[in-house]
Amino acid sequence: MRPYIFVNLAMSADGKISTRERRQVKISGADDFKRVDEIKAGADAIMVGIGTVLGDDPSLTVKSPDLKAARRARGEDEHPLRVVVDSMARTPLDADILCKGEGRRIVAVSAAAQAGRVEALREKAEVVVVGEQNTDLTLLMHELAARGVGRLMVEGGGTLIWGLFRAGLVDELITYVGSIVIGGAGAPTPADGEGFAREDEFPRLELAGVERVDDGVLLRWVVKKEVHSAL
Amino acid sequence: MRPYIFVNLAMSADGKISTRERRQVKISGADDFKRVDEIKAGADAIMVGIGTVLGDDPSLTVKSPDLKAARRARGEDEHPLRVVVDSMARTPLDADILCKGEGRRIVAVSAAAQAGRVEALREKAEVVVVGEQNTDLTLLMHELAARGVGRLMVEGGGTLIWGLFRAGLVDELITYVGSIVIGGAGAPTPADGEGFAREDEFPRLELAGVERVDDGVLLRWVVKKEVHSAL
Ligand SMILES: NC(=O)c1ccc[n+]([C@@H]2O[C@H](COP(=O)([O-])OP(=O)(O)OC[C@H]3O[C@@H](n4cnc5c(N)ncnc54)[C@H](OP(=O)(O)O)[C@@H]3O)[C@@H](O)[C@H]2O)c1
Ligand SMILES: NC(=O)c1ccc[n+]([C@@H]2O[C@H](COP(=O)([O-])OP(=O)(O)OC[C@H]3O[C@@H](n4cnc5c(N)ncnc54)[C@H](OP(=O)(O)O)[C@@H]3O)[C@@H](O)[C@H]2O)c1
Repeated sequence: MRPYIFVNLAMSADGKISTRERRQVKISGADDFKRVDEIKAGADAIMVGIGTVLGDDPSLTVKSPDLKAARRARGEDEHPLRVVVDSMARTPLDADILCKGEGRRIVAVSAAAQAGRVEALREKAEVVVVGEQNTDLTLLMHELAARGVGRLMVEGGGTLIWGLFRAGLVDELITYVGSIVIGGAGAPTPADGEGFAREDEFPRLELAGVERVDDGVLLRWVVKKEVHSAL
Repeated sequence: MRPYIFVNLAMSADGKISTRERRQVKISGADDFKRVDEIKAGADAIMVGIGTVLGDDPSLTVKSPDLKAARRARGEDEHPLRVVVDSMARTPLDADILCKGEGRRIVAVSAAAQAGRVEALREKAEVVVVGEQNTDLTLLMHELAARGVGRLMVEGGGTLIWGLFRAGLVDELITYVGSIVIGGAGAPTPADGEGFAREDEFPRLELAGVERVDDGVLLRWVVKKEVHSAL
């Protein structure tokens, strides 16, 4: 058993999620900001990789007072459970994700993380140990399901998203395509890492929605499930 | 004076135009194939970088007999003028772009290209020398305009497209977004090269069209012209 896993990201028209220097950039606008806040408030948990924590230091909190109030009225924490995928337990103790807003946090580390770091993080978050050298994403999903996570939103970055696709753990991919060109062979993209080499490895998608939002377009893709079984 | 320059490419949902090994992959379908053939037949010239010639060996010919006949009826060659951007004159003499189909070809080299290679290419194509070490794209565009090219279609790859954006030479960017995930930090994207570092350098686009085609979506972006002048 694992949660329903959806990835939400913003990319430039040329498929970049930040610059070559990994500087966070404004890709979407106010309407998309609202949309993201809403789907975040509708999720049980929200996940990022340690690269995004170190680069952008996001808090991943719900921003709208109404959405927070609605969550409380449903008996939930104001913010979804926040999850960092962080094999070596490098999450800074003063990271916004650990410090801003109420609610539970999980840092998912591997057995290779230093005990001292893990103990320090335990002051701020639940630490889950899954995998030997790298955080095992499949095991982590079982741990999240066991903690009642039914809907998991993934915000990135590209390396974590690649890991999820490779492990067959993505159900839905939502990409906002913004009206800028960033460029750069070294700039982060929606799915980085090693990449698939053969066509029969590519995850196949079904286009479930196309909508103009702000100055760009929102594409909703559902991952087809049967593809690898027939090969 | 330069031609109207439009870029047409196909990318995966995660912004890749081929795999990390630069293997050509099928990203779109039959309807998009027809669309691309039509806009190619409507162009005066079609351009690729030497990376694409060496990797994919495309012929860049018009495929439809009707479209070819229509071009002939207008007094044009069957195929648009084919242009390779190739600073060092590395285009193989047996490349499909030089050998398949009738019509004119231009190989755009720099002054650094070896004279022997340039002379050999002259048997197969017009060779235009623009720039010292790298082909100067702005000068090349003037040469094309001088030869009557009003509409230029650029097929890629990502390094050439980056060069065109950096030089402010793109009027329109047409991206077909296909229903697959390729992944890979090293896989080619629609705009590779160095990349822009600062937000005020990003070319700004206007979304001129959104259309479902095959299993994906076709996005047409027009490049806004005033952006750099105000900075
Ligand atoms: N535009 C957007 O929507 C958006 C959203 C988020 C992020 N971003 C951008 O993305 C960039 C950061 O992306 P990133 O790729 O560097 O970092 P990331 O995906 O946030 O984190 C990647 C890290 O996660 C850890 N990890 C642990 N187990 C993993 C597994 N099984 N599979 C994959 N990763 C695993 C790895 O580090 P360890 O081995 O140390 O654990 C890996 O390096 C930033 O530039 C940020 O601005 C953009
Ligand atoms: N999906 C699609 O729509 C599509 C379309 C086309 C290509 N592709 C893919 O793109 C990949 C090839 O792309 P690529 O980036 O390696 O090669 P490319 O863009 O086709 O060619 C780049 C080369 O052009 C030359 N060049 C000369 N002057 C330049 C200038 N001023 N600015 C930029 N480039 C200049 C450079 O080589 P020199 O210095 O030697 O001249 C440069 O390395 C292949 O994997 C191919 O499959 C995909």
